[in-house]
Amino acid sequence: MADEEVVVLGFWPSTYGTRATIALDEKGVKYEYREEDLSNKSSLLLQMNPVHKKIPVLIHNGKPVCESLIIVQYVDEIWRDKAPLLPSDPYQRARVRFWADFIDKKVFDAGKKLWSTKGEEHESAKKEFIEILTQLEGEIGDKTSLILGVTEAECPKLIEWAKRCTHRESVSKSLADPKSSSSKELSPRLGGEKKQKSVFCEEPRPERKVGPSNLGWPELQPSFWC
Amino acid sequence: MADEEVVVLGFWPSTYGTRATIALDEKGVKYEYREEDLSNKSSLLLQMNPVHKKIPVLIHNGKPVCESLIIVQYVDEIWRDKAPLLPSDPYQRARVRFWADFIDKKVFDAGKKLWSTKGEEHESAKKEFIEILTQLEGEIGDKTSLILGVTEAECPKLIEWAKRCTHRESVSKSLADPKSSSSKELSPRLGGEKKQKSVFCEEPRPERKVGPSNLGWPELQPSFWC
Repeated sequence: MADEEVVVLGFWPSTYGTRATIALDEKGVKYEYREEDLSNKSSLLLQMNPVHKKIPVLIHNGKPVCESLIIVQYVDEIWRDKAPLLPSDPYQRARVRFWADFIDKKVFDAGKKLWSTKGEEHESAKKEFIEILTQLEGEIGDKTSLILGVTEAECPKLIEWAKRCTHRESVSKSLADPKSSSSKELSPRLGGEKKQKSVFCEEPRPERKVGPSNLGWPELQPSFWC
Repeated sequence: MADEEVVVLGFWPSTYGTRATIALDEKGVKYEYREEDLSNKSSLLLQMNPVHKKIPVLIHNGKPVCESLIIVQYVDEIWRDKAPLLPSDPYQRARVRFWADFIDKKVFDAGKKLWSTKGEEHESAKKEFIEILTQLEGEIGDKTSLILGVTEAECPKLIEWAKRCTHRESVSKSLADPKSSSSKELSPRLGGEKKQKSVFCEEPRPERKVGPSNLGWPELQPSFWC
């Protein structure tokens, strides 16, 4: 589609924003990324998302789409001819939507608790976080190092999946640069160590090893939804 | 589709469960409704929704679909030939998804706060609830009594829309019977008065006045999402 204007309003540490840019990159859509200062939100952000006043916002030919999962589905429905992000089977689509919703409701909330607590409360939050990741791992199955102190012994499939995701160009380019000092400052904690901002960005950005043509949606799909 | 087995696990006061049954009724799908005792959940519920252990669950030919908004989208995608629940245009679909998500994130949480507080806290919650409904009303526009103490002066379009919804058979049959004493016991409060369980069920169930063939999705759509 020529003559299209696609803008993403984001904030680099946001995994919600990363969802939007990964989806666009997978589709090969050219877009302008505008970093927001959340302490001084732009008038464009306030105008495009007056309800929540949050990033990410996808602005497509002047019309805003808000909320990361809604953006991903919109991108998939508008640019249908390349790299499907959801399966075509309605039941499988429902399953993908379920786990995406699970991540929003459970993983992110548990993650926040983890990063904002200390001592016994932190240990309890860590236990809860690992339980949630274990549930997620059950879904990932044979398709998904260390993730924020979660070891391969605890969630081996999830960690394997995370590695695979970082080898995908659309994912690696959207993740924060782990060499950046600012990313370390904003990083979450688990096990008392400073880590990078993204759960799935513990190693330096890898070279692209696997091309999109080699991966179907089932392997790719989790990367959009977390 | 013949020889289909469709079961809904629900709990009558749940507006989430109501979403699922309204969607099926709109599509003309025959289903078996099984009421759950949430203090003693059935083994079927625990088996079908082991992650959240919550209603509603749609069981279609033995396979579970959980989370009410996901169920509605699944129903729309499976029974495509009748009564579309989402618009066909991707941008309009994104808008419907946005407001459905808004209802889940804002309206229900604010409603819970409203029903569980007293005194000054209750007044503050009431103010917040009305602000949220006013935002929702902005979306409903000219397409949307009293709702739990919210007057027509505060949210006239929303209240008009609620009235229209209760005149739709799929909605009225899914709402709790306002004459039921149990519904009154479980009802939320606003303005210090006991009301029925459903925000949009303050009047006795009306006779069906408007047939599905007379209403397109834009008028119907909000009923699925709240």
